[in-house]
Amino acid sequence: MDFSGSSVVVTGGAGFIGSHVVDALVSKGAKVTVFDNFSTGYRELVNEQEGRVRLVEADLLDYEAVRRAIAGASFVFHLAANADVKDGLLHPRKDVEQNIIATQNVLEAMREHGVRNIAFSSTGALYGDAPVFPTPEDAPFPIQTSLYGASKVAAEGLLTAYSFGYGFSTWIFRFVSLLGPRYSHGHIIDFWRKLRRDPKVLEVLGDGHQKKSYLHVSDCVRAIFVAIDRAAAPKGGAPLHIFNLGHPGMLEVNESIGILCREMKVSPELRYTGGERGWVGDAPRILLDTRKIEGLGWSPTKTIEDSVVETLRFIEANAFLHTPAPKPA
Amino acid sequence: MDFSGSSVVVTGGAGFIGSHVVDALVSKGAKVTVFDNFSTGYRELVNEQEGRVRLVEADLLDYEAVRRAIAGASFVFHLAANADVKDGLLHPRKDVEQNIIATQNVLEAMREHGVRNIAFSSTGALYGDAPVFPTPEDAPFPIQTSLYGASKVAAEGLLTAYSFGYGFSTWIFRFVSLLGPRYSHGHIIDFWRKLRRDPKVLEVLGDGHQKKSYLHVSDCVRAIFVAIDRAAAPKGGAPLHIFNLGHPGMLEVNESIGILCREMKVSPELRYTGGERGWVGDAPRILLDTRKIEGLGWSPTKTIEDSVVETLRFIEANAFLHTPAPKPA
Repeated sequence: MDFSGSSVVVTGGAGFIGSHVVDALVSKGAKVTVFDNFSTGYRELVNEQEGRVRLVEADLLDYEAVRRAIAGASFVFHLAANADVKDGLLHPRKDVEQNIIATQNVLEAMREHGVRNIAFSSTGALYGDAPVFPTPEDAPFPIQTSLYGASKVAAEGLLTAYSFGYGFSTWIFRFVSLLGPRYSHGHIIDFWRKLRRDPKVLEVLGDGHQKKSYLHVSDCVRAIFVAIDRAAAPKGGAPLHIFNLGHPGMLEVNESIGILCREMKVSPELRYTGGERGWVGDAPRILLDTRKIEGLGWSPTKTIEDSVVETLRFIEANAFLHTPAPKPA
Repeated sequence: MDFSGSSVVVTGGAGFIGSHVVDALVSKGAKVTVFDNFSTGYRELVNEQEGRVRLVEADLLDYEAVRRAIAGASFVFHLAANADVKDGLLHPRKDVEQNIIATQNVLEAMREHGVRNIAFSSTGALYGDAPVFPTPEDAPFPIQTSLYGASKVAAEGLLTAYSFGYGFSTWIFRFVSLLGPRYSHGHIIDFWRKLRRDPKVLEVLGDGHQKKSYLHVSDCVRAIFVAIDRAAAPKGGAPLHIFNLGHPGMLEVNESIGILCREMKVSPELRYTGGERGWVGDAPRILLDTRKIEGLGWSPTKTIEDSVVETLRFIEANAFLHTPAPKPA
């Protein structure tokens, strides 16, 4: 797909993955509208440029704002989400509002304005406690163990129903956790903050044996554009594409801690909260089958260990990450 | 489970399946609150009885009304839904509101009041265009082809996340289409209304070869209580039970028409709108694998043909069904 000169909206464009997608689109010659409410995004990640990048600071629950932002666009990257998986049970309406209703607002605004192309950031978390590893896109019907997973499977359902019903061209990407520059939420930064506060003791959620796959954000963004460029619509079906994006490797939480301690030159006593899950709804093992996207000629270039180290260097170099982000209302 | 003397809420209790569940609960000695907005339910199906059945006429989007109705209950049958599968694309927000947000309102009211048992009417439609027949509960990850299916998979996700996160005991039933007394929506009544208006011509959506399984409502309600009585929670998991409910037989739309024409003594010219689907998002074939519920000792007692004839007799005998129900706002 040729993005040169086209008008593209990126929801969550001030976020980790979103800001990288914005950069990629700008380098392809697109005019980009960043739509973000800064609940978890950072102003430091938005580089407004006359005629290239404009910022709309608004919430996706404000339908009028969504309508106005999407008018005239040819493609929407819908990457905004409540991605706070761990604390879902503390505010159970948030996932429904920010991930389901917000997604329908995007889809309705697109329908109203005749915008017909959408890429969406879903998650490997929607496989729940997967019975198959590596987990393929057509894994057995998953049982949602978290509100986050439930909200993402709901959003995917809306996207695919719009694809069948209104002819939207739809790309759905189910990610593992991402690492790399501009990373700002997750266990690496949580551990780093704890160790900076107290290098002698580290509390670890669960038993430390949770083992998951991680992908570098640059490999992820490259995969997204490979899929958009090269994926052909299934014959006779809706123009709908679903891809797992992940790394063939995995890293145990204890291994992450080992890398951090080595790089930060600390030797804390580890205190485990216990249990195989970090929190209720946490999947202790995540490994996605990525043969579908690899079939289009993509493969990851970075090792997970290099990604962890690069993430740590970014955190250390960027003061705006040194205290936890203000909790959204 | 002993329902005698217990207080039970049935959302959609003025509907087809809901009113049968209410009767079953009353016969088991429960005190029942029927919660219905009469958007598709019928007043004729509610039999208010001092101390046995009370009616709350309200909408599930009215959270205060839901809270008040659920206070003091020990079990909720959440059967209310927008079940208008065919016209989902005409009002795409309705499925999200009536089937997702409404479901979360029920769950939140339960959480607030410490009510921890819920049974939910899901649908075989969430298997989309299933690649396996008969379709088991752990069929390959489905792609939602209708807003109805998307909204039900979302509601199931919320139910299961609440089950894992808050310890709710949850029974999810994925139905085929139901037939029998109090039936009021679907292709049998649509054909019957058309033939009563004009017995010479019958328009048929699709090619008439859509072939689906149907279950008699009395067999369905019996299965629901068998599952609640006999299903044990999986070891170490959430107290969560998911069952397909269906019939081993199937009926082609053309066969339904044959039975109707024979019983109504008419011979219309059939005019097919064409295509293998009755409408966008229609699954041309539905057959569920019901070995799981059969493993608890249940099996259907009625043939599909007898169910069609019984449905027709009920429609003919009940004047309130003779004109289409007013379209909800």
